[in-house]
Amino acid sequence: MAVALSPATTTLRLIKPFSATALRRLYIFHKPKPPFSISLPTFSSISPFAASLPLSRRTFCSVIPSAISSGEATKTETLEKKVGEFRKKNKIVDIKGGPDEGLNLVGETVVVKGWVRTLRVQSSVTFIEVNDGSCLSNMQCVMSSDAEGYDQVESGLISTGASAWIQGTIVSSQGSKQKIELKVEKLVTIGKSDPSFPIQKKRVSREFLRTKAHLRPRTNTFGAVARVRNALSYATHRFFQENGFVWISSPIVTASDCEGAGEQFCVTTLVPTSGEPGDSPVNAIPKTEDGLIDWSKDFFGKPAFLTVSGQLNAEAYATALTDVYTFGPTFRAENSNTSRHLAEFWMIEPELAFADLDDDMACAAAYLQYVVEYILENCKEDMDFFNTWIEKGIIKRLSDVVEKKFVQLTYTDAVELLLKAKKKFEFPVQWGCDLQSEHERYITEEEFGGCPVIIRDYPKEIKAFYMRQNNDGKTVAAMDMLVPRVGELIGGSQREERLDYLEERLAELKLNKESYWWYLDLRRYGSVPHAGFGLGFERLVQFATGIENIRDAIPFPRSPGSAEF
Amino acid sequence: MAVALSPATTTLRLIKPFSATALRRLYIFHKPKPPFSISLPTFSSISPFAASLPLSRRTFCSVIPSAISSGEATKTETLEKKVGEFRKKNKIVDIKGGPDEGLNLVGETVVVKGWVRTLRVQSSVTFIEVNDGSCLSNMQCVMSSDAEGYDQVESGLISTGASAWIQGTIVSSQGSKQKIELKVEKLVTIGKSDPSFPIQKKRVSREFLRTKAHLRPRTNTFGAVARVRNALSYATHRFFQENGFVWISSPIVTASDCEGAGEQFCVTTLVPTSGEPGDSPVNAIPKTEDGLIDWSKDFFGKPAFLTVSGQLNAEAYATALTDVYTFGPTFRAENSNTSRHLAEFWMIEPELAFADLDDDMACAAAYLQYVVEYILENCKEDMDFFNTWIEKGIIKRLSDVVEKKFVQLTYTDAVELLLKAKKKFEFPVQWGCDLQSEHERYITEEEFGGCPVIIRDYPKEIKAFYMRQNNDGKTVAAMDMLVPRVGELIGGSQREERLDYLEERLAELKLNKESYWWYLDLRRYGSVPHAGFGLGFERLVQFATGIENIRDAIPFPRSPGSAEF
Repeated sequence: MAVALSPATTTLRLIKPFSATALRRLYIFHKPKPPFSISLPTFSSISPFAASLPLSRRTFCSVIPSAISSGEATKTETLEKKVGEFRKKNKIVDIKGGPDEGLNLVGETVVVKGWVRTLRVQSSVTFIEVNDGSCLSNMQCVMSSDAEGYDQVESGLISTGASAWIQGTIVSSQGSKQKIELKVEKLVTIGKSDPSFPIQKKRVSREFLRTKAHLRPRTNTFGAVARVRNALSYATHRFFQENGFVWISSPIVTASDCEGAGEQFCVTTLVPTSGEPGDSPVNAIPKTEDGLIDWSKDFFGKPAFLTVSGQLNAEAYATALTDVYTFGPTFRAENSNTSRHLAEFWMIEPELAFADLDDDMACAAAYLQYVVEYILENCKEDMDFFNTWIEKGIIKRLSDVVEKKFVQLTYTDAVELLLKAKKKFEFPVQWGCDLQSEHERYITEEEFGGCPVIIRDYPKEIKAFYMRQNNDGKTVAAMDMLVPRVGELIGGSQREERLDYLEERLAELKLNKESYWWYLDLRRYGSVPHAGFGLGFERLVQFATGIENIRDAIPFPRSPGSAEF
Repeated sequence: MAVALSPATTTLRLIKPFSATALRRLYIFHKPKPPFSISLPTFSSISPFAASLPLSRRTFCSVIPSAISSGEATKTETLEKKVGEFRKKNKIVDIKGGPDEGLNLVGETVVVKGWVRTLRVQSSVTFIEVNDGSCLSNMQCVMSSDAEGYDQVESGLISTGASAWIQGTIVSSQGSKQKIELKVEKLVTIGKSDPSFPIQKKRVSREFLRTKAHLRPRTNTFGAVARVRNALSYATHRFFQENGFVWISSPIVTASDCEGAGEQFCVTTLVPTSGEPGDSPVNAIPKTEDGLIDWSKDFFGKPAFLTVSGQLNAEAYATALTDVYTFGPTFRAENSNTSRHLAEFWMIEPELAFADLDDDMACAAAYLQYVVEYILENCKEDMDFFNTWIEKGIIKRLSDVVEKKFVQLTYTDAVELLLKAKKKFEFPVQWGCDLQSEHERYITEEEFGGCPVIIRDYPKEIKAFYMRQNNDGKTVAAMDMLVPRVGELIGGSQREERLDYLEERLAELKLNKESYWWYLDLRRYGSVPHAGFGLGFERLVQFATGIENIRDAIPFPRSPGSAEF
């Protein structure tokens, strides 16, 4: 089979609706036989053959000999060129990601570009493992001393951490770890790696890697987390878009003090700083005669904060567009240095109009099943990795979530269950108390054997002001979804849509009614039953990967004392 | 044709890859004939027939008589129920959005839930226009005095702004504005509207509507902007996902002072405030012996800021995963109250490894064409609205962008062009100066007749430190994409991947090398040629809708003196 792997010649915007597996098959196999690469190292001093290869991108930027087609052009005819055509890059996943793991390409000439993970020089042959982040798998490149560029191995120019451009022939592999490998014809070191490269072959701890957040995506674990996180994000958008929800960007900075300022970050331009710690005299802050900060001088004219939730804003859009969702960053200035808390995290907050708590629970369950199924289908290699190295049994745990019908029970029944439990809890249980993580995990893991459980109808005293009061006068239409291992993953409620009930509740809680003027307006003009939920995206990443510390579930975590990078 | 429109009975997560037009055809038309609604008003006091209709959601939450299937359950068998099945709501777009605008449904009984836009009581009949935000079109509901619930019309309970549940029969319309209308059988006012409802029939200005940001999505213009914004966002994700890019969340809060603190917002917990302006004494701010702010007491242990760009972080991930993109909020504390600036805006920043400026330009052009084509295909009704009411000719302008090949020319050639132009500019042009909006628009609108133009290879003095120096020693591999009407829409560059060049540039600009330690690391360990660009999402929304003021292109705009809602 003398065909070569070559990119499709249609422009990408013409690609039809796809599934991630279909994506891998997008390439058209045809003659003649150009190298696999479409984008070569661009500095010709380093790549001695860049000019000689037929498919260099530069060939698309030819000079246009005539004026552009608009007919209105009047300038000199040779000044401008057309912009070249964009093509999807060919990556290692495109070679090894297929059903036969690359065996169909045996005999083909391909180019691999990536970073050297390991390099083993043996007497007759050198093994170079190259990874480009497109999948977990490295391309094992086998180089004998007669291959072009072998001097770079001898001189030590190419080493762990270096970037390389490698052309070779796909051959079937003798090793048990992969079906194919690359017999190297030419090697070009693109960027060498200083010997101080901190991620060498020996295993390094995740704590250490947090101090190298700029390099950790070059490890197996963090590469896999990044890909699965990406897939969860995309699946989230797909789920809501397919169901007619409109994505809303809720504001990040807000002077609305609806949420109370307790654990909020202040956003200000009053504080004088050039970014240098030494350059911020306190007495340069504008103040009033009473010695108070003069907020009228601040950028927004009053105290402003980072948002803790986009829900109230989403409600405004739900009561116009029916179904909406947010997906954006939220913040908590909570001084808790735990493996479950971040100061900055991403939240998904759908809001459904003409919906009650049952609709809300059904949506939350369908959403979770959708995104989990999506990664099980589209991130198989990464999920196998997590299953082997991070949390044994995670695939079974997640498959259960997809297959089982979720259970709901009331808070009152849950408390009854816990009181009857034979298990000793650290925190005693009684009606009216907030459930602790130990209780939540007991219910989902032990009582219901790993099935997600939604607890509903919580006492109103332990829930937020905006939740809809139930007819019993004691509980509100709130729900928390508990999942094995993580505990609470999703929290939601039906919102109080009755103006009089909501105003009464604000008064009970001594909240300032004027601050909520626009939120109350939503109940004044065409109020509708509506409901929604919130999901911390990094919790979902933890749940879906088995990663224990939430700081490893986001590229650049922020926590007390830490906003590096 | 005696079929009824009923939701598909499969769960939504089984839906196959879709296009937005296909989505509208997802419903299965079959007998028997239940009402169109699947989700009724949930307070039965208001909806007298909620209990009597066969498809109420509540019927899905039946009591499960046996212990759940895991076999491990031990609790009382009647405590819990299964969570109901989630189904896509049926909306007005599902009735009127098809190719025959609903004519295929004539004779069917359906339920519409939404907000009353207008209500005209005539002698024999009442016209109620209802909108649910799923599309621009209202459902025209025609109610005669013998229909159930007509007393709500007579009493004035139902009025502009109210929410309603309306069941009726689809009939073909006599009016010229729509093909079908709803002959009302039953009407239920869900939430009445106070007579003070600020969006009455008379046209209100966009300035006024900015003060009602919570209600403006209930207008034609802002509903359409929200839907097109959503489509642009989803098309963005689709484009990058289909091309193998990984979405990265770059950090929002950063103590990294790489970008300089000039126009950044400070994020702090040092400022004492309960959210009440009166409660912030300046002398409560922790200070050092020298009277400086004691940053060690702040949440992050040093000054922290809102990000102005995720690019440097994206570079870290691109040099591990090859192709990545960010899509998140960024901030500028710039005191400019213009129709082109926001203090908080969303940015899309792709970063491509093993790529040069030509690849970058090709990607930017393909991206823009993809998202523009997406909305032209999927938001036809909204685009027609913009074409008629907001910017005449916008569809032609956007179609040109999709069809024309983009032109590139160098900055040097662009300056030459401008010097030769017969037009008088406010700002004189000479080599080395930054191009002004008037120059950019002249080039794209007049010289190239509406074709997008990419200008490349700018003088290094007017561009950022990280841009790759060209061989001439005077210019850098930067590019700006100019489009008609908006001017600069996209700015990008190849990044300086050569450690020595980058360090030299930092020194020239007197930037602190230590602050860039991790950014320099990317050049120390396996550096690769890479490039990327940034796109202000609200500028794109302006470009795609014709909306003139950028504050109308985001749900809740933030600008100097304004962080309401």
